Amino acid sequence: MTEGDDESRYRYGRDREMARDASRVEAFSDAVFAIVLTLMSVDLLQLGPAREDGSGLPGALWHEWPAYLAYIITFAIVGQVWLTHHNMWRYVIRVDQVLLVFNLVLLLFVAIIPFTADLLADNLRGDPFDQRLTAALYVGAVLGEALVFNLSWWWARRRRLLHPDLDPRLARAVARRFLLGPVLYVIAFAFVFVNPLLSLCLYLVLVGVYLIRGPGDLPSSAR
Amino acid sequence: MTEGDDESRYRYGRDREMARDASRVEAFSDAVFAIVLTLMSVDLLQLGPAREDGSGLPGALWHEWPAYLAYIITFAIVGQVWLTHHNMWRYVIRVDQVLLVFNLVLLLFVAIIPFTADLLADNLRGDPFDQRLTAALYVGAVLGEALVFNLSWWWARRRRLLHPDLDPRLARAVARRFLLGPVLYVIAFAFVFVNPLLSLCLYLVLVGVYLIRGPGDLPSSAR
Amino acid sequence: MTEGDDESRYRYGRDREMARDASRVEAFSDAVFAIVLTLMSVDLLQLGPAREDGSGLPGALWHEWPAYLAYIITFAIVGQVWLTHHNMWRYVIRVDQVLLVFNLVLLLFVAIIPFTADLLADNLRGDPFDQRLTAALYVGAVLGEALVFNLSWWWARRRRLLHPDLDPRLARAVARRFLLGPVLYVIAFAFVFVNPLLSLCLYLVLVGVYLIRGPGDLPSSAR
Amino acid sequence: MTEGDDESRYRYGRDREMARDASRVEAFSDAVFAIVLTLMSVDLLQLGPAREDGSGLPGALWHEWPAYLAYIITFAIVGQVWLTHHNMWRYVIRVDQVLLVFNLVLLLFVAIIPFTADLLADNLRGDPFDQRLTAALYVGAVLGEALVFNLSWWWARRRRLLHPDLDPRLARAVARRFLLGPVLYVIAFAFVFVNPLLSLCLYLVLVGVYLIRGPGDLPSSAR
Repeated sequence: MTEGDDESRYRYGRDREMARDASRVEAFSDAVFAIVLTLMSVDLLQLGPAREDGSGLPGALWHEWPAYLAYIITFAIVGQVWLTHHNMWRYVIRVDQVLLVFNLVLLLFVAIIPFTADLLADNLRGDPFDQRLTAALYVGAVLGEALVFNLSWWWARRRRLLHPDLDPRLARAVARRFLLGPVLYVIAFAFVFVNPLLSLCLYLVLVGVYLIRGPGDLPSSAR
Repeated sequence: MTEGDDESRYRYGRDREMARDASRVEAFSDAVFAIVLTLMSVDLLQLGPAREDGSGLPGALWHEWPAYLAYIITFAIVGQVWLTHHNMWRYVIRVDQVLLVFNLVLLLFVAIIPFTADLLADNLRGDPFDQRLTAALYVGAVLGEALVFNLSWWWARRRRLLHPDLDPRLARAVARRFLLGPVLYVIAFAFVFVNPLLSLCLYLVLVGVYLIRGPGDLPSSAR
Repeated sequence: MTEGDDESRYRYGRDREMARDASRVEAFSDAVFAIVLTLMSVDLLQLGPAREDGSGLPGALWHEWPAYLAYIITFAIVGQVWLTHHNMWRYVIRVDQVLLVFNLVLLLFVAIIPFTADLLADNLRGDPFDQRLTAALYVGAVLGEALVFNLSWWWARRRRLLHPDLDPRLARAVARRFLLGPVLYVIAFAFVFVNPLLSLCLYLVLVGVYLIRGPGDLPSSAR
Repeated sequence: MTEGDDESRYRYGRDREMARDASRVEAFSDAVFAIVLTLMSVDLLQLGPAREDGSGLPGALWHEWPAYLAYIITFAIVGQVWLTHHNMWRYVIRVDQVLLVFNLVLLLFVAIIPFTADLLADNLRGDPFDQRLTAALYVGAVLGEALVFNLSWWWARRRRLLHPDLDPRLARAVARRFLLGPVLYVIAFAFVFVNPLLSLCLYLVLVGVYLIRGPGDLPSSAR
């Protein structure tokens, strides 16, 4: 706020604004992630009425195990997507309209997950066709997310929205890793037509694999 | 925190406070936007019980297409309003009581959208009068938002709450753009009395048009 | 991050931490405010099923006017409490355990408001005793909030948690203003036993009065 | 943004990024805490329909006392966990993948609390076996949280993710305090098999004890 030369002040203003933009997008996305994570909890709260017409409490609670499974699966997947989002946006220092639209589309897919997880859990005891249909919807939503991550990263690299200190080799490694995701998901998707539960298990394995630190993730803490 | 002259320290304190004010308003508004975006997802979760009394799962899922449409429309509209809010508040560096009240009124209209979108979707298969009524309510909520954006921008310019580096010509261009919104919405509103679906389509076109970068939007990323 | 003398670095660390503490409390409180503001919207979404057993859509929508009233009242009140919270926390630069507990108690009262507003709206057409009971619950929740604001401000002043540049006369003026609130609310509370609707109107007048800028509010923007 | 030597700039960038990481995790966690705190309020809103088939309003309201109790208990417990999280994360200046996963597991337990509190409240009037089962589930969720806090603190100390100025003796005192939690909870857990209500009361006493400032808490405000 000194009376220095205007040009530099303006530039400073622009840079600061840019940084604010990126953190505002992160904060907004985080709020959506947090709501989605806890949405399943709202669903769990609905168990009360169902219990009343059941036999005993333990049986009623046990009967709802697909709801618990859906809760844990959703937490695992949304948590993993949040981690990926977190890791990717650490490198974004500027945003443009297109990246914001991509981010909104990503959040649209994220917000669908509790719905598809719920459908899937409800049909784990259903007939094979319904199992396949709901598993397909579920993996489809996750596939959509993986595609949007690829688009966002490609766009951010092309439009130079990333931190200038980011090593181009690292940026390429992250791009390759993002590209691998949809391929693996399509394979898991194919198993839906063999055995939906196997497909789901494969998917959970993928979540676990992604939690292992890869290129572009948070730097190892032992520096 | 040096023992420098008090006056400058106080000034610094005031400026920092101001900046904090503006980001707190943004964070608060973002939380409301995020909740509204995911509210439709809560609505989707309610499909479970409805399905049980349906025939098969695919038919039951298909029967709920208005809910999916409402979900996508709400995401598109709330997303666009969020972008506009984001673009406008990038220039706000100070807030006063009146701007905060305007912002609360804006959020009131934002939080109504899932309700009106839901009503609209439920009545796409209803009789013509109900279609018109719900489309009118829906467009009315969006119109309210557009009017509040105009009021807020006018007030922020008048009370010098915007960044001093903001080019006055740019500020006027944004004002003209904000003014165009309600005019277009009133035209879309008029079509409600001809054909509600056409009115809705026109509105979705408007959302698309607004996503194209206009004056006051995020600067092009290729600097 | 220079290798300067440790003591000053530690102090810097402490001061920065302090500031971070205060903004984290604000962000957390804002999330609660935002959720409460939009909770009524979830309630509005429940209208769908109710409508199905109604006669026509306009009648069904009209029949739900207490829900709209509850929505607007809640928005007005929670919005005003958010403004007061915002204005008060602008001066808080440090927090301690007790202030955090006071803040949690405040949020407990805030989160109750949609429930009491809903009860009140549902009983505007009920018998006089129910009207009085629900109005009493409602005003009671608001009274609780006003008392917690007084406690928090008293504690923050006593424990020197406020900005050192805050004029003590302004701090006293804010304290007087906070003290006036409960007195006015108790008067509005007394009118519950005369006429619940009158009591409610008085309360809405109080909200309006509080929106007028008083001591401790955001500085006038024309500097 | 000067053209200084790249290495120092990169370091600065890394440090700033680190700080941003930690605050992003806090903001994300806070959103989950805020949603959980207000979830019970959604539950309270469901009282309306239940009331309609009741006798009078006061009786119907009174009949719902377990819901109010669950609301207050949840607020107390989630509030206390938030305080502990707040106090712990004040010292975290860097994050790694593992700490983020621990934090997600913590949030998973936090988001379960409204469900277990609701179950517990619904069964306070039930038969002894159901009381014990629900109390066990409830204390189990809290125990899970306490264990995750221990894991997180142990990991953060081992991987040097804490502020370098943090006194090692203080870090050890916090670790001892975190270790005490599960021990006390297991004792409270044991009382479930004697008397569930007594177990609950013991637990509420523990919450109260934790609100008293211990090692690692916010510094006393009188400096």
